[in-house]
Amino acid sequence: MLYIIGLGLGDEKDITLRGLEAVKKCEKVYMEAYTSLLSFGLSTDGLSTLENLYGKPITFADREMVEEKADDILSSARTSDVAFLVVGDPFGATTHTDLVVRAKELGIDFKVVHNASVMNAVGICGLQLYRYGETVSIPFFTDTWRPDSFYEKIKRNRELGLHTLCLLDIRVKEPSWESLSRGRKKYEPPRYMTINTAIEQLLEIEERRGESAYNEDTRCVGFARLGSEDQMIVTGTMKQLLAVDFGAPLHCLVIVGKTHPLEEEMLDVYKLEGGSPHQKDDGSV
Amino acid sequence: MLYIIGLGLGDEKDITLRGLEAVKKCEKVYMEAYTSLLSFGLSTDGLSTLENLYGKPITFADREMVEEKADDILSSARTSDVAFLVVGDPFGATTHTDLVVRAKELGIDFKVVHNASVMNAVGICGLQLYRYGETVSIPFFTDTWRPDSFYEKIKRNRELGLHTLCLLDIRVKEPSWESLSRGRKKYEPPRYMTINTAIEQLLEIEERRGESAYNEDTRCVGFARLGSEDQMIVTGTMKQLLAVDFGAPLHCLVIVGKTHPLEEEMLDVYKLEGGSPHQKDDGSV
Repeated sequence: MLYIIGLGLGDEKDITLRGLEAVKKCEKVYMEAYTSLLSFGLSTDGLSTLENLYGKPITFADREMVEEKADDILSSARTSDVAFLVVGDPFGATTHTDLVVRAKELGIDFKVVHNASVMNAVGICGLQLYRYGETVSIPFFTDTWRPDSFYEKIKRNRELGLHTLCLLDIRVKEPSWESLSRGRKKYEPPRYMTINTAIEQLLEIEERRGESAYNEDTRCVGFARLGSEDQMIVTGTMKQLLAVDFGAPLHCLVIVGKTHPLEEEMLDVYKLEGGSPHQKDDGSV
Repeated sequence: MLYIIGLGLGDEKDITLRGLEAVKKCEKVYMEAYTSLLSFGLSTDGLSTLENLYGKPITFADREMVEEKADDILSSARTSDVAFLVVGDPFGATTHTDLVVRAKELGIDFKVVHNASVMNAVGICGLQLYRYGETVSIPFFTDTWRPDSFYEKIKRNRELGLHTLCLLDIRVKEPSWESLSRGRKKYEPPRYMTINTAIEQLLEIEERRGESAYNEDTRCVGFARLGSEDQMIVTGTMKQLLAVDFGAPLHCLVIVGKTHPLEEEMLDVYKLEGGSPHQKDDGSV
């Protein structure tokens, strides 16, 4: 049996009892590490918090391993219980469907243990989840690559009065162009887009396109470290949020659409007061 | 401190370690019971599974209580730690923002413990969550009230190639019209819309409107008891799903938009074969 287990957003305490029970009975435990090293404060040679909790070693499965070595994971799952751990929900922002499809083809049973992901946890800002349009991704611009496909989608959502969740780029273990040209893989340091960079890029595209999808007075909600003890949530205009230091990653951004009164009241809980968010050190508000 | 704690979708094992730790230190524990009695197999006088797990009594807070007696909950939270338990994620399909807004007004700190909700757990069918448009709600039709506001939204989503999550009506503790007219509140038995009823209503509205938003050959995914051990997920056309017995509630439905190849492969995992879904008794596939 292949268990695909969501770990939630914060740290090792965000696994569910169901998930923990499954991990404890598995013979092998793999952990997806595309975004997880960060949010769980781990390094490749130090998964100790989780290993202590689970009482067994974890095999760190980076992006390449999941793609290239899925056969190993699946052949273990054919004869024993194997856990594959994923930050957030297994089918949240990133996809692990390939592993499931291959398991199915090989006749290996699977079970999914769900958890919170950014896709539903943004509900904490008070904007109703059923009033969101299509989600967009904001990629890091380079000198020569400044794509704007998110612009149409945001424009359409706003015309319909819908909120837009913007997922911000994460670059982890990307082979550098320089190393690829030399035939040896060397990796760039990880990069996580900040809310500030995302807003700069959004405003650059509005400037270029000029179709008034949004502007610097458009209201947004910035989220940093959502679901962690030290999460930070701030409501303000794009211009206001540009001046906020949201601290460590991960960040994401919601562009506010048409609101109902109760949504407004909740947004007020997170609004900037005198230029700085009224949030306490322990993440409570 | 007011802790608002998501319980997830299945049963008592779907609480997170963080959530359980918070409940255990709270002096009072309230539980929202709008949809929860059902999914957690509880009755108003028998919250024993949860009470045993938590080691303390739970005050059952039905819809009226949350609305009318929020003051009691909040005044307890002013001087001690109070937990308010919610099925799914606290800010999933239903709203608990009012309680948070009032806590904030009274200067009471709050913390949210996230969990899975239907809004992200539907990701298990393989349709990417960022390719969903606005969510719609399908209300129970009556003889005189057959609203179709969902039709425009589905049509728009499908024109854009987006998937549509349809939340199906739940009627719990609704005062009956008869009892209201007599001045005494008596409640209707709870009603939960099935996928079959939802599809019948959807097709009736397509028949009436005739704008080809969808038809009986439109592909859908039906979900019953999502996140539970005995969940059932079936892909098929509206016509095919009409003939499927999905069993006990809760049900929800996704109308499939334009798909990518990997989404197709994953949908195939759940497709009808020879008229019945290939799902085992324990909910695994």
